[in-house]
Amino acid sequence: MSYIENMGINAKLASKELNKLDTRTKNKILLEIADNLENKKELIKSENEKDLIAGREKGLTSAFLDRLTLNDNRIAGMVEGVRQIAKFADPIGEIEKGFRHENGMEIKKVRVPLGVIAMIYESRPNVTIDAAALCLKAGNSIILRGGTDAIYSNVVLANIIKEVLINNKLEFAVQLVEKPEREYINQLISLDKYIDVIIPRGGRGLKKAIMDNATIPVIETGAGLCHTYIDKFADLNKVKDIVVNAKVQRPGVCNAMETLLIHKDLLQEVLPNLSKELRALRVELRACKECLPFVQDGILASDKDWDTEYLDLILSIKAVNSLDEAIEHINKYSTMHSEAIITESLENANIFTRDIDSACIYVNASTRFTDGGEFGFGGEIGISTQKLHARGPMGIRELTTLKYVIVGNGQIRG
Amino acid sequence: MSYIENMGINAKLASKELNKLDTRTKNKILLEIADNLENKKELIKSENEKDLIAGREKGLTSAFLDRLTLNDNRIAGMVEGVRQIAKFADPIGEIEKGFRHENGMEIKKVRVPLGVIAMIYESRPNVTIDAAALCLKAGNSIILRGGTDAIYSNVVLANIIKEVLINNKLEFAVQLVEKPEREYINQLISLDKYIDVIIPRGGRGLKKAIMDNATIPVIETGAGLCHTYIDKFADLNKVKDIVVNAKVQRPGVCNAMETLLIHKDLLQEVLPNLSKELRALRVELRACKECLPFVQDGILASDKDWDTEYLDLILSIKAVNSLDEAIEHINKYSTMHSEAIITESLENANIFTRDIDSACIYVNASTRFTDGGEFGFGGEIGISTQKLHARGPMGIRELTTLKYVIVGNGQIRG
Repeated sequence: MSYIENMGINAKLASKELNKLDTRTKNKILLEIADNLENKKELIKSENEKDLIAGREKGLTSAFLDRLTLNDNRIAGMVEGVRQIAKFADPIGEIEKGFRHENGMEIKKVRVPLGVIAMIYESRPNVTIDAAALCLKAGNSIILRGGTDAIYSNVVLANIIKEVLINNKLEFAVQLVEKPEREYINQLISLDKYIDVIIPRGGRGLKKAIMDNATIPVIETGAGLCHTYIDKFADLNKVKDIVVNAKVQRPGVCNAMETLLIHKDLLQEVLPNLSKELRALRVELRACKECLPFVQDGILASDKDWDTEYLDLILSIKAVNSLDEAIEHINKYSTMHSEAIITESLENANIFTRDIDSACIYVNASTRFTDGGEFGFGGEIGISTQKLHARGPMGIRELTTLKYVIVGNGQIRG
Repeated sequence: MSYIENMGINAKLASKELNKLDTRTKNKILLEIADNLENKKELIKSENEKDLIAGREKGLTSAFLDRLTLNDNRIAGMVEGVRQIAKFADPIGEIEKGFRHENGMEIKKVRVPLGVIAMIYESRPNVTIDAAALCLKAGNSIILRGGTDAIYSNVVLANIIKEVLINNKLEFAVQLVEKPEREYINQLISLDKYIDVIIPRGGRGLKKAIMDNATIPVIETGAGLCHTYIDKFADLNKVKDIVVNAKVQRPGVCNAMETLLIHKDLLQEVLPNLSKELRALRVELRACKECLPFVQDGILASDKDWDTEYLDLILSIKAVNSLDEAIEHINKYSTMHSEAIITESLENANIFTRDIDSACIYVNASTRFTDGGEFGFGGEIGISTQKLHARGPMGIRELTTLKYVIVGNGQIRG
């Protein structure tokens, strides 16, 4: 039996045990994991240092190394995250609806775990803890395949979880693929006999490869080519704050804006000041031909820009002739994550929110709010950009499914 | 541009128009389709006759030809189905939940259409009408690829729909793939740029091929290897009716029972009479070694039987030593559709419903109830046997998704 198949079998068995646990037991395990993380803080930092040294030798960017770093603060954040997940309501066992069939049978739709989840992600090691804690709370076992640049960090974190799980006779509820070869990813995404869902979290290339090759249902998360459209009827006092926040507050995340669309009648009034503001915040500006004369220190955008998720202090800017043209541009280039309109027109707000085909659509607010915490889910395992099962921020509830339980006393169909 | 790509583009454009329609307009279109079907009854029958003639020449089985036949009764049933779908509540626009963020933004989760659905199905031509009507009601456009043995019937039905759609400026909301080559199926399931969901409805082979090759999310439907377990604590008065109904009432459908499991202590008491009853109804009985001596006119089952969806008057019978063994057998061989336990033990009922990993789990009732009509959804587009998005019977609501609409007055993230 192969390495991955063996993990799959063990994960499936563990998921059956997890499904039997009551909420109190699951919370106790989560709190033990939090304590164990806290106690092993120094070990985590020293293992993380090995990744950082290797990363520096490899010449990884400072932004990358920053995301990779686990310091006291970040470890405290992970610990706090797990304790919060322990506090959240348990969705398992909820009866979503129930009714009596005319023949007397009771038909209930009950919330249950998904089963076994496999998560393939890049190099932020805190995802290892977040994903494991959310899955455990939802009664799922999980197989984690993190980025190879974080391997020492991920191994130590997975072992800290495992110690607690062994004490609770759930050794295989959380497993980490420790072998770095990509071949194991291919095996993982076709292990449909044991794995119920694949959640990739990372760049477009990774996700496309997984979608094309998986034989297991996939939930795509986190690609965010987000737009903000300044409508003809925008309140210009709202423009600067919303645009700057969406682009600058945290440019490296998926809900940051990448493209600004602006109604052609507003170019002269809006762009000179706005671009000055953005340049002062060191944002590179790539503008269409029509906008360029009004953009301070801008460069001409190419067609490729409309299709690029920068995840950086770069903004593309494009003039449009109408609301319809803005909608068409967004539906063509968006990754269906988050888009915003700035307008005082109720009609235009309604058309925009109706016709944009994205997970989260904002009127007069920053796209940066698309986040499990902001939406009240506590933690999140990712932002789904697909339409099936879960859309937008995915919390504990999005890691569950429903089944029908029908109780009768001998009913047969006539 | 290829034949299929062209259909995809047109379907996507049509889906945008559908998304703008109010409920009244959608219902008007559905009623016009129903009227047009009624008016063209004779044409439908004469085109259907061409399929039947070709089918007889090809030597198709009488069961197959029966499913293919459109007579007055069945056409009236289709018409009635469409009129019922017009009457159902429209889920589009429902606000599933909504709340105010502490910064004052209103966050709403709103039900919206999925977009473009492609359905690939076998030769029952009434599916053409059911699927089109359900999709239209849910605001989706649909591309249909029916079985080649029903091509004349499907073409005439699609044209009857199209006449109505043209009059309502929605020509491409329902399209039929008329070219029979399987190559077009492959193109369809990788047209992720325009199609949002693939729903295959048919045999395991078709579905496996689609799951393995699609680059679009798939909802698997309709594979039904259903079990009934006679527990040690069964009320023996309930056994015969439930077992006979689950096997015999309509053996060719996915919610019919294929395997009967029975606690080893009950073999002598239950099997002789039960098997006599089933034999009288012409059910072929394939029993395990332990059961065989008690089964009238039985033959020895092979391992392959536990893994076979007969869709016919054949039943496999197996003794188990315990409830746990029954659960293990079911979770191993089931297609996760519908399973039943016959028991008076509350504890065993609870364990069975908790531990069985299927869409619908019955206590003391026939598996034949898994059906959109019985569950109160009116029509159904299929029975989902996967865990993501929709599980069990899929009605109009399961053909929708949700998006977040957030309305603020200038909020930014701190």
